[in-house]
Amino acid sequence: MKGGTVFLIDQTVLPFKFSIVRSKSHFETCTAIKNMTVRGAGAIGGAAAYAMAQAFLEAPEKGFWKYVDAAKARIAATRPTAQNLFFAIDRTYQAAKASKFPREAAVREAERLADRDSEACKKIGEYGSRLIKSGFNISTHCNAGWLAFVDYGSALAPIYRAKKQKKKIFVYVDETRPRGQGAKLTAWELKNEKVPFAIVPDAAGAHFMSRGLIDIVIVGADRIAVNGDTANKIGTLEKAIAAKRYGVPFYIAAPTSTFDLKCSSGRYIPIEERSQDEVLFQEGLTEKGKIEKILIAPKGSRAFNPSFDVTPAELITGIITERGIVKPSKAAILKALKV
Amino acid sequence: MKGGTVFLIDQTVLPFKFSIVRSKSHFETCTAIKNMTVRGAGAIGGAAAYAMAQAFLEAPEKGFWKYVDAAKARIAATRPTAQNLFFAIDRTYQAAKASKFPREAAVREAERLADRDSEACKKIGEYGSRLIKSGFNISTHCNAGWLAFVDYGSALAPIYRAKKQKKKIFVYVDETRPRGQGAKLTAWELKNEKVPFAIVPDAAGAHFMSRGLIDIVIVGADRIAVNGDTANKIGTLEKAIAAKRYGVPFYIAAPTSTFDLKCSSGRYIPIEERSQDEVLFQEGLTEKGKIEKILIAPKGSRAFNPSFDVTPAELITGIITERGIVKPSKAAILKALKV
Repeated sequence: MKGGTVFLIDQTVLPFKFSIVRSKSHFETCTAIKNMTVRGAGAIGGAAAYAMAQAFLEAPEKGFWKYVDAAKARIAATRPTAQNLFFAIDRTYQAAKASKFPREAAVREAERLADRDSEACKKIGEYGSRLIKSGFNISTHCNAGWLAFVDYGSALAPIYRAKKQKKKIFVYVDETRPRGQGAKLTAWELKNEKVPFAIVPDAAGAHFMSRGLIDIVIVGADRIAVNGDTANKIGTLEKAIAAKRYGVPFYIAAPTSTFDLKCSSGRYIPIEERSQDEVLFQEGLTEKGKIEKILIAPKGSRAFNPSFDVTPAELITGIITERGIVKPSKAAILKALKV
Repeated sequence: MKGGTVFLIDQTVLPFKFSIVRSKSHFETCTAIKNMTVRGAGAIGGAAAYAMAQAFLEAPEKGFWKYVDAAKARIAATRPTAQNLFFAIDRTYQAAKASKFPREAAVREAERLADRDSEACKKIGEYGSRLIKSGFNISTHCNAGWLAFVDYGSALAPIYRAKKQKKKIFVYVDETRPRGQGAKLTAWELKNEKVPFAIVPDAAGAHFMSRGLIDIVIVGADRIAVNGDTANKIGTLEKAIAAKRYGVPFYIAAPTSTFDLKCSSGRYIPIEERSQDEVLFQEGLTEKGKIEKILIAPKGSRAFNPSFDVTPAELITGIITERGIVKPSKAAILKALKV
């Protein structure tokens, strides 16, 4: 954020176009979160904190708190699943509320949260890289890289760290239908980071595992309940079930801002149902280099599009956080969070 | 087949265009199998039998068997996984070999095999529909409907029969990346048959099962080993593993021509690796109604594209055949095949 403007990488046109969206008000930032110009748990959190700060900057002297409270509700309503969103809004709001200079305090807190997210992800990379041996084939789902956070990423941070440590690694990137964040964003990040990878169809994971081709699975998280149940991009659960069957270690990587202490179990995590069109249409690059949307099913077809699923704690080997690797149990989580 | 010409529905342009390809030689029919103009276990078998018959019709008097044997090898080399292909080629070839009039015998045998496939699928529909109760939500993967066979289909035959029996049913259709046979072909068939359905992302199956939304899974097969291990479209294995976890009955539907008695276990079934481009590009309809191919990943990305996976017998509830529902064990399979 500079002045009252938030600068966001437009993730809807990657990998075909790199462009920065300038969001001039909290309204515009809300739209950017909703339409997934900005997506990924940490990046949503960062954008939400800045949107909250924008609202404080915009609020008129008369009816200041009314304006800010309405904005708070508006930002919270953009997307329902990512815990980082609610965490960031609350922290920013509370910091402003506690200050004599709420505008300045909100901006400062948003900056602090962004820095904190980046710092946490860096540490996740450090802890997570210890799990990766040279020669490993790593499977990941969706995009939990630096695009999905303020920097470094969660699931990809250990991979980048391992690469810097000169470990020989290869990444199996799930395409991640319907929106293709694997094929579009993770592949683009890995290409930029010069990490060798291959894109694979989402449901091929069990096949590769059954042939002994995957050494470890690392994915991100949108919300983690106190008992360790984890909501992440649709398709994560199937991968976790397959990993369990074939004895492949299955790790979640997430900063502690992803834990929802008010949520006792995965069954209370709200699952966002997004537009059918995300399943029925695909966007990509034509031969002529134009970004085009195509229909991939009979006209008038219906689709279901749950955006997330919940992986039960028992299928998770560990949760890589900035405070170390945490067992997916209530006791271990509360201890790590020092609650 | 009429005269020496085989008529095939062009499955590569469905559901956007219905067109019939006229294949005038066994060479052209081989190309049609290879490029998936015709696909689906039974339809591949039918096309292969007719290709064999075409070769017999084409063969010159001088060097007759040399021509036919070369054609046989050529047809067998089109695709490696579907057992129906090898079954159909062998049957047609043997029937011709045993006759004084090999040309006529080959044509007659190809016709008989096509009729037999259709008849078998009709019976699969009958047996399979007994498993479907009114109110059931049925999950299926890929396309094992009448497009994939000579008629009726295997996995979809019980659904069509249940619909005729006025049972209230709903089908969860896996998109089936990379080629989208679910979204493109199964959805189109179900629309034609007026069966209510929704297209879902491939890896969402476990999510729906975890919420109790799926009552039964029925899929087709490309090859079944003597021990019951079954090769089917990539993604089937993940679905079977998830079904096991959530106690959802998981059925294979296939005519007995899909069993490979020479194959003792799934690990000996060859898995076809197809072009990376099937993963990296998607075909569909633009807003202007043009069929267009778009790139859905960064340029120069690598992809892995195993076309099938193997589901172990222990994950299969039963195999719906034209001879009834067979347990996935060597003893039951040999008994059903009367070997």
